[in-house]
Amino acid sequence: MSDWIAVDWGTTSLRATRMAGERAVETRRSGDGMGGLARDGFEPALMALVEDWLDGPTEVVACGMVGSRQGWAEAPYATVPCAPPLDRAVAVDTRDPRLRLRIVPGVSQTAPHPDVMRGEEVQIAGILRASPEFDGVACLPGTHTKWAHLSAGEIVSFRTAMTGELFALLGRQSVLRHSLGGEDWDAAAFAEAVSDALSRPERALGRLFELRAADLLLGQPAATARSILSGLLIGAELAATKPWWLGRDVVICGADALARAYETALRAQGLQPRVLPAEATTLAGLTAAKEAS
Amino acid sequence: MSDWIAVDWGTTSLRATRMAGERAVETRRSGDGMGGLARDGFEPALMALVEDWLDGPTEVVACGMVGSRQGWAEAPYATVPCAPPLDRAVAVDTRDPRLRLRIVPGVSQTAPHPDVMRGEEVQIAGILRASPEFDGVACLPGTHTKWAHLSAGEIVSFRTAMTGELFALLGRQSVLRHSLGGEDWDAAAFAEAVSDALSRPERALGRLFELRAADLLLGQPAATARSILSGLLIGAELAATKPWWLGRDVVICGADALARAYETALRAQGLQPRVLPAEATTLAGLTAAKEAS
Repeated sequence: MSDWIAVDWGTTSLRATRMAGERAVETRRSGDGMGGLARDGFEPALMALVEDWLDGPTEVVACGMVGSRQGWAEAPYATVPCAPPLDRAVAVDTRDPRLRLRIVPGVSQTAPHPDVMRGEEVQIAGILRASPEFDGVACLPGTHTKWAHLSAGEIVSFRTAMTGELFALLGRQSVLRHSLGGEDWDAAAFAEAVSDALSRPERALGRLFELRAADLLLGQPAATARSILSGLLIGAELAATKPWWLGRDVVICGADALARAYETALRAQGLQPRVLPAEATTLAGLTAAKEAS
Repeated sequence: MSDWIAVDWGTTSLRATRMAGERAVETRRSGDGMGGLARDGFEPALMALVEDWLDGPTEVVACGMVGSRQGWAEAPYATVPCAPPLDRAVAVDTRDPRLRLRIVPGVSQTAPHPDVMRGEEVQIAGILRASPEFDGVACLPGTHTKWAHLSAGEIVSFRTAMTGELFALLGRQSVLRHSLGGEDWDAAAFAEAVSDALSRPERALGRLFELRAADLLLGQPAATARSILSGLLIGAELAATKPWWLGRDVVICGADALARAYETALRAQGLQPRVLPAEATTLAGLTAAKEAS
């Protein structure tokens, strides 16, 4: 039996967790992301994962792109500065009367530059649930890495970097894909590339094609090339976001290997970031959203 | 009747031109690029375009990725510093005895950084055919833009920027694709983005996601977003290649709209680049290669 169900529903994936209070009992995943669903496809996609968890009316709290204009139902953005808008979750009608669904809104910003997030505001709520007094910067690495300045329980402002999507596009679809296979890692090459891109950010894009040429001419190992590509892109991101993290407390929350890469890069700059696990932090945020209803 | 046939054979396309001396009589194109052909597919792909031009033994001079390891036959790189290696074209056996095929080698470099070109060395030969005394920099915009320092008839060194491929990946496959449609142009937005990325190159990658957010929140027109994306990437490239062009004579040779974008960006930096047409310059280079045999 579930007390309630926590749902993290992004562009490419859906993750549902059966919760007992604030404890996760079981998590199921599918590839039914928002990007592949028409409006009437959301409820069947969710039911395919959770139907056998339902034995009566059940609260379901969801976050992510499921609340975008192309999602199940639009949950209009809250605007910075604001606390994560947990108390503004939008109730959504469902065909199955057992589902009591609410979707947490994203957050938008128009100045100093336009920006949006959907899902990360719940991770931020999870960070603040563990550390209500946190005053510093949350770095949430992923397809679109978010940097959020948090103070007095609010998101003051934020900035998105497309580093993860660029890494995936260059690694899988560009000419570099021939030179970047595998999953191995070259820590020294990563560190050198971060440092080079941070100190001379104009070099990051200029060095990309070298990865192909070094393979063709010198047989450079794929692990070295992958690590350099990651280092150049993360180094360029750190150069772009330096006013965000310099001299600040930083919390990193993301998938394990990626979070460690950002941690390594920031430690080399003299910071002492804390690393929080992504899924547990999202669940803590969804728990806070459930309690806010 | 053809004197001879000039062939520009890249990764994604094939272009054959029936030549009378140094004059182009007719050009035909197909999508049979190197990337989609197995080794025994090259001759049929060429014959499908040119067979009715053959009325006896005919010289065919080719350049581009057709000479790579994955191509019809490998034409090993010449190494900088060197003149475009027209006199080192590799004769290739063909099944049809009327074809007298030669492939011009590419050029490689190991220091100051590893780099390779295939096809651009023939465009450079075309530039030098028109201006044998040229001392300066050739900028060859395309999927992979090449910057080559030319002096005393030689390629002294060169640098590749993946700007064109990045623009295509971001514009067609990233989340930005939703905000970048059409072919219209916003010249002021382009100029501002070039200037911003050139003066603060770390901003170029940081600003990418703004294009999506500005569409969602402010309805920014797609033409403006496309022009900003182009300007950010070209500006970042100019920042990376500044030691190449600053205070030098620059010749730009590329497809019309793209060459004009680079020209506009460099003029804003006080340069007076000359622009040469891409196809005619390639044909001039292939003509020089034919004469060098």
